[in-house]
Amino acid sequence: MKAAIIGRGNVASHLQKALEGKATTCLINPHTLDGIHEDTEVIIISVPDNAIIQVASMLKRKYRIGHKILAHTSGSTSISALEGFAEHTGVFYPLQTFSRNVPLEYDEIPFFIEASDSGTGSTLKDIACLISKHVYYADSDKRRKLHVASVFGCNFVNHLWALTEKLLTENGLDFGMLHPLIKETCRKALSNSPAEVQTGPAIRHDTCTISAHLEMLNNNPELQHIYGMLSESIKKMQRNY
Amino acid sequence: MKAAIIGRGNVASHLQKALEGKATTCLINPHTLDGIHEDTEVIIISVPDNAIIQVASMLKRKYRIGHKILAHTSGSTSISALEGFAEHTGVFYPLQTFSRNVPLEYDEIPFFIEASDSGTGSTLKDIACLISKHVYYADSDKRRKLHVASVFGCNFVNHLWALTEKLLTENGLDFGMLHPLIKETCRKALSNSPAEVQTGPAIRHDTCTISAHLEMLNNNPELQHIYGMLSESIKKMQRNY
Repeated sequence: MKAAIIGRGNVASHLQKALEGKATTCLINPHTLDGIHEDTEVIIISVPDNAIIQVASMLKRKYRIGHKILAHTSGSTSISALEGFAEHTGVFYPLQTFSRNVPLEYDEIPFFIEASDSGTGSTLKDIACLISKHVYYADSDKRRKLHVASVFGCNFVNHLWALTEKLLTENGLDFGMLHPLIKETCRKALSNSPAEVQTGPAIRHDTCTISAHLEMLNNNPELQHIYGMLSESIKKMQRNY
Repeated sequence: MKAAIIGRGNVASHLQKALEGKATTCLINPHTLDGIHEDTEVIIISVPDNAIIQVASMLKRKYRIGHKILAHTSGSTSISALEGFAEHTGVFYPLQTFSRNVPLEYDEIPFFIEASDSGTGSTLKDIACLISKHVYYADSDKRRKLHVASVFGCNFVNHLWALTEKLLTENGLDFGMLHPLIKETCRKALSNSPAEVQTGPAIRHDTCTISAHLEMLNNNPELQHIYGMLSESIKKMQRNY
């Protein structure tokens, strides 16, 4: 399998690393696009969402890619973005938060594949299986849903931790004091259904503690608003459970 | 050291278990209060917040506790709640989410101690040190701050995961698909400052993705509202960082 990965970001460099020794890959600079061999079978575009079409159209002008497989790695871009640039198109979406220089267990990363035809689908699936134990097919609609879910489950969760750290620091306390509790919260949520292990004042309908907390946050209307809204949301989920 | 732990809940039973073989403890039923020995030095009340004063006053009627140390385990109850029931009072607060039948690494649980006098403080600290490596003094004000911070960092985080699971399930997707991403988000947040490793559309000011997500959530005004508010909060923190 010969694959070219186009990109300079974290996803591109991690993909290249994850395929090292398993497939013949090269990392291609998205500005020059130099270095794609004639016999490359799969081209994976791994650039910011708003640059995908531009890179695809530059590729088409520079190379004869019509019979190669052309895929992108974006969670929120439809497969149709690649239409017209190649006959066989697909999506090769790794659901992970990539940071440069942070090693990852690649075989744990779920990959979501979509393809214009079943042959392309199995080729992309084969490549994903070289990396990971968790490879799924998901159409653009499901991939979009996964992406928005990951914003709640990861981006927003991390932000709550950022707010927590700020609140502690402002009061002369250290975020490290909360690490054991956060680890255990995470462990419990992943070994159960999170709704089943919800704890805290809202699920207990402990209005006394809730009022005291809201009053403590009087000087921080933003945190107060978030506190009120998420507490209501917890009670609402409990009612509908 | 002879200690009596009053309570029937998760905190009481875990405390008793954590002290097994390290101190002479007994678990006392909060309804009858039977079985507290004359030579018990420390009484730890571990009951729901709104029952603490009632248990303390029952204790005072039933036993001569004036010279014993009387402590509670509540995060959001002031030490002053125990005033008048005993000469030496304190707080013995383990910051953890306890579930029955879920084993915990007790030595990782942070304990926060407050006491009416330094002798009581060191006795309570000694007991906490039998259990944990992380023992701190914290007055009622700091403890309240820790408690509200833990609501954000743990209870609300778990609820975001509950909302995530619901969103995935409703769309025929499995919460397990997101487990690797959640684990990595947690690992990154705990080995850095969470604000420094924030990812996602809001921090990138990717208004195109944000609008698409908000539109996808049109049939769910609650999630839409949470999405909008937390995205704004991420942008705000970035501006002030």
